[in-house]
Amino acid sequence: MSEAAYMTRQVRLRERPVGYPGPQTWDVTTAEVPQPGPGELVVAVSHVSLDPAMRGWLNDVRSYVPPVAVGDVMRAGAAGTVVASQHPSYAVGDTVTGTFGVTEYALSDGTGVARTDLGLAGHPTWLGALGIPGMTAYFGLLDVGRVRAGDTVLVSGAAGAVGSVAGQIAKALGCTVVGIAGGPEKCAWLTSLGFDAAIDYKNENVLKRVREVAPGGVDVFFDNVGGDTLDAGLANLRRGARVVLCGAVSGYNETSLPPGPRRYMSLLVFRASMTGFVVFDYEDRYPEAREQIAGWIADGTVVARETVLPGGVEAFPDALLGLYAGVNTGKLVLEVDAPTPGLPG
Amino acid sequence: MSEAAYMTRQVRLRERPVGYPGPQTWDVTTAEVPQPGPGELVVAVSHVSLDPAMRGWLNDVRSYVPPVAVGDVMRAGAAGTVVASQHPSYAVGDTVTGTFGVTEYALSDGTGVARTDLGLAGHPTWLGALGIPGMTAYFGLLDVGRVRAGDTVLVSGAAGAVGSVAGQIAKALGCTVVGIAGGPEKCAWLTSLGFDAAIDYKNENVLKRVREVAPGGVDVFFDNVGGDTLDAGLANLRRGARVVLCGAVSGYNETSLPPGPRRYMSLLVFRASMTGFVVFDYEDRYPEAREQIAGWIADGTVVARETVLPGGVEAFPDALLGLYAGVNTGKLVLEVDAPTPGLPG
Repeated sequence: MSEAAYMTRQVRLRERPVGYPGPQTWDVTTAEVPQPGPGELVVAVSHVSLDPAMRGWLNDVRSYVPPVAVGDVMRAGAAGTVVASQHPSYAVGDTVTGTFGVTEYALSDGTGVARTDLGLAGHPTWLGALGIPGMTAYFGLLDVGRVRAGDTVLVSGAAGAVGSVAGQIAKALGCTVVGIAGGPEKCAWLTSLGFDAAIDYKNENVLKRVREVAPGGVDVFFDNVGGDTLDAGLANLRRGARVVLCGAVSGYNETSLPPGPRRYMSLLVFRASMTGFVVFDYEDRYPEAREQIAGWIADGTVVARETVLPGGVEAFPDALLGLYAGVNTGKLVLEVDAPTPGLPG
Repeated sequence: MSEAAYMTRQVRLRERPVGYPGPQTWDVTTAEVPQPGPGELVVAVSHVSLDPAMRGWLNDVRSYVPPVAVGDVMRAGAAGTVVASQHPSYAVGDTVTGTFGVTEYALSDGTGVARTDLGLAGHPTWLGALGIPGMTAYFGLLDVGRVRAGDTVLVSGAAGAVGSVAGQIAKALGCTVVGIAGGPEKCAWLTSLGFDAAIDYKNENVLKRVREVAPGGVDVFFDNVGGDTLDAGLANLRRGARVVLCGAVSGYNETSLPPGPRRYMSLLVFRASMTGFVVFDYEDRYPEAREQIAGWIADGTVVARETVLPGGVEAFPDALLGLYAGVNTGKLVLEVDAPTPGLPG
């Protein structure tokens, strides 16, 4: 490795968006990433993760993480290869994930960095079923939803990164699983994965269809969507049901706080609970979840699927809009493929 | 006791109301209550309970209890004296509570009947702090809310039958307690009971005031009200908070389903839960709660207060509207005082 700095393109937050982020939201800049100092490493990013939660990080409000500051590199999970290191745990050539941001090269002190095994799966999967989305599905379903064999499980956003894994885990655990997704192709994919039913919210009355396919009611509702979808699930609970609040993607780009779930008093009628969680709280237990999910992938129980968009970091603004438009089936990632000079390609 | 039937006035549901129940909702009829057969008893009602949940019982929808049928005597908790009995557990002269309905005399098979001890407290209290409202406060706070010493507890409808007991129990358990009630008099009563703060929703911005008086956030929010009050609490949770859904009285007389809590995603940010419950599920444990609350009343820890309206069963329609207008401080009951011929007055 040379002693030169790494020239890197990066996507920075130019101004906070109102509604959907547009071209004026972002700057694509070029910066130098220096050689690592003691305890640091530099990663050449292969793939950047696109996550629904990103929209929330752009708002200047108190939440579970601080907002991205105007002028900062956009926060993002990413995966790549160590190209320089003075960190005791990482050597040049190691492959890793971490919150590296929308950038080609990133300097890191190792916080939140985890090793990947490309023999097990490629980096897109390490950002999906073996990454934060997989962890989210696992802990949301098992710890928050307290899912049990025989439960009827309803998953919204079911063809997405988290939902598709959550539904497959629920099947693996012996549940009846109903997925809600947008469009016949995604629904067909869900049933091909073993979902017992798939409801196309773009073409069907979700509330009525849930009642039809789960006439006894839903024990666990893993909700990624909010809005009318949440209400449709609330209307179809079984006594003692657990509603897992994982996200509310239908409202993330609204310019004002969207309406709340009108049917929330179903929680009283059905003696049910609705519980929010943030996956980062489970970081200590990621290895447990990752090992379990890796086993399920290896034996075919869980199919990990990703939609990989080309174009490098400059394509990030459009890719993010694509996420909210639902272009992806499974996990959406952006291919960056920053060169790793001197390392095998 | 004579062998004659008991002539009784009763309030029956004439037609299902839209919005607030009005004069056209009810019929006051006279009927005969026969002498009890084997296993039955007749109760002369002293007081009828007025409960916010009554409005829901008038709607023809699936809920935790069947709706009151058109033409039936209105369902109500009540207390009174046994005036005739062929039931092995109850003798003439025994005082009891049960779901006797809005009536002067009631025939019962003993289901749901419990003995009262007028040496401990009068019948209004047996319909309040020692009755279903007290049970609701107790199990909602302890079992659903999992309240712990040191918690900050927010109670809405705090000057009502359930809220006033819930807040006082929370104080007894070593919590900081904030009550939300309507008007300066109710708020003054709450602080006189030992509430650490009382917020007047009719004259104050509840969301801002909760933030001021509970700057560290709320651990348990015992909500009887719904609507904007629920949102105000959701905006002020502490991490790991429990929202106890006990009722939503602000919306019970709406002609369409009122808006849901827009701030429900606070549950995610704060890793919080919102859980509904129905007190009837705890019936096996009522004796435990009743003994505990009776002890607190006896030693002055809990003050049981009732608003007793005169007028007998004919006054029920107005009394019910009074409940939703908030005329009561503490438990609202209607005095019926049906004669108990041959028994000491």
